Amino acid sequence: MVLGGGGFLGTNLSRRLLARGLRTGAFGLRCPFRADLPGLAWHAGDFRDPAALAAALPGYEIVFHLIHTTVPFSANLDAGRDLTENVAPSLRLLDLCRDLGGRRVVFISSGGTVYGAATQLPTPESAPTNPLTAYAVSKLTIEKYLALYENLHGLDYRVLRLPNPFGPYQVPTKGQGVIGALISSARKGEPMTIWGDGSVVRDYIFVDDVVDAMEAAMADASGERVFNIGSGQGRSLREVIDSVERLMGRRIDVRMTAARPLDVPKSVLDAARAEKTLGWRPKTGFEDGVRRTIAWWDSGAAERTR
Amino acid sequence: MVLGGGGFLGTNLSRRLLARGLRTGAFGLRCPFRADLPGLAWHAGDFRDPAALAAALPGYEIVFHLIHTTVPFSANLDAGRDLTENVAPSLRLLDLCRDLGGRRVVFISSGGTVYGAATQLPTPESAPTNPLTAYAVSKLTIEKYLALYENLHGLDYRVLRLPNPFGPYQVPTKGQGVIGALISSARKGEPMTIWGDGSVVRDYIFVDDVVDAMEAAMADASGERVFNIGSGQGRSLREVIDSVERLMGRRIDVRMTAARPLDVPKSVLDAARAEKTLGWRPKTGFEDGVRRTIAWWDSGAAERTR
Repeated sequence: MVLGGGGFLGTNLSRRLLARGLRTGAFGLRCPFRADLPGLAWHAGDFRDPAALAAALPGYEIVFHLIHTTVPFSANLDAGRDLTENVAPSLRLLDLCRDLGGRRVVFISSGGTVYGAATQLPTPESAPTNPLTAYAVSKLTIEKYLALYENLHGLDYRVLRLPNPFGPYQVPTKGQGVIGALISSARKGEPMTIWGDGSVVRDYIFVDDVVDAMEAAMADASGERVFNIGSGQGRSLREVIDSVERLMGRRIDVRMTAARPLDVPKSVLDAARAEKTLGWRPKTGFEDGVRRTIAWWDSGAAERTR
Repeated sequence: MVLGGGGFLGTNLSRRLLARGLRTGAFGLRCPFRADLPGLAWHAGDFRDPAALAAALPGYEIVFHLIHTTVPFSANLDAGRDLTENVAPSLRLLDLCRDLGGRRVVFISSGGTVYGAATQLPTPESAPTNPLTAYAVSKLTIEKYLALYENLHGLDYRVLRLPNPFGPYQVPTKGQGVIGALISSARKGEPMTIWGDGSVVRDYIFVDDVVDAMEAAMADASGERVFNIGSGQGRSLREVIDSVERLMGRRIDVRMTAARPLDVPKSVLDAARAEKTLGWRPKTGFEDGVRRTIAWWDSGAAERTR
């Protein structure tokens, strides 16, 4: 059961699970790429609606929790709302899973934000967590509740802390996903605005590699609970823009605006634990991933949204 | 303005502030020892009621946030409720303080629970936080929001992580405060039930020393934000019972029941940062504190509750 199965990560994950022949359900407000998900049991519902959520869970052994109603920027505009819309329903999800029993929860957390301005780069899971966004406080609080529910109720869970994933099905509707936004702008010949001068360094990872990690987290029997999933490679936004321009063979009209305090200068994850414990490592080079993302846009798939 | 000014810590703090001649207000559901707080501006109100809270804050430069509706045990029975009743209203408090401006928030957190089963003893502020109770998740989440609001909005704050405080005005109504409960049971000649065999080790600190730390946090101009406040001395519950019995000159009928998983075997705080930065250190020896607590009960003050 993929909560948020209609989103970027959820669509990619659902496709993989379906390709494996697994009984796959998805839950969320919208499922724009349902045509690409034959066989998916789609449950339309609002995560904040306990009854809708309760109806979707029975019959599934693994629950992937990928829903978050905000992005870092929007969460900061109303931290209370972020808490109410995300942490409170996540806690209800844990209560439901506790009551139903026999389920693993795989929670998608944010390696790019929970550490805040990390002093150690690449950043391991053991680094201090000093969030600069309400989004990250919510993600971290849900992680704490997962650990609490394991202690109190034996809840089975894993957490994946992701950096900046990119790839097919990432359409720039929520102001998230700079690579999809760059490709989309380039295709339309429209200008694209970024915050800051393009010097911020991020850890970009191709979505197929993220889905590999999700599959590994589904099966993991180790004593570890929280895993950074990242390339370990830092890349400036300027370099990313250069790569996309080169691979598309066209210039993008990038406009710079004031940097945001919530954007730390540099975020790169140390994924040594995932490699050691899950046997996971990224297989897709950055430019190869960008190439495959461009190919997806060129296939017209983005226009198949419904 | 002391939020929770009618409680154990709040009454002690309010008395001190009034003794200093400071304009002192208090907010909360009840103020049982109001007779001992002449000059206090009492605002009866529910912390979950935004309008009541908003009405209490203007005119005060420092806001002490001491309200929590649960104790560790009760919080675990309904984590969602703990979140809704404590974290959400605390976030509204921060919004109010941001909007009003010019206020410092001193938040009372829980050094005895936010670290969980710490491997480092005494435990410093930099130790990992792995809560075993929803109470501690809530406390920790509020700490994270305070840091976030400083970053986003320049909110001025300090956090004090307390261990097991004891002293006058701690009456055993919420199942919290073993020393007050022991004294009360001894005075009534009633049996007293404890969880486990009395081997759990805690860091007990006399309330006057806690109030010293609160005053220091009010004035602190350092770059530090979070302070452990503790004696650095571990004491088993068995030793505490022995001390109370000896100092009262009577036996207490202590009945043991099954230990609770939420009670870590040992919790002792390292308060070196508070000593270095706030110039704070506890002045009251354990037995001296117990003696003064017994004297308070003997004065009949507990019966003056209204």
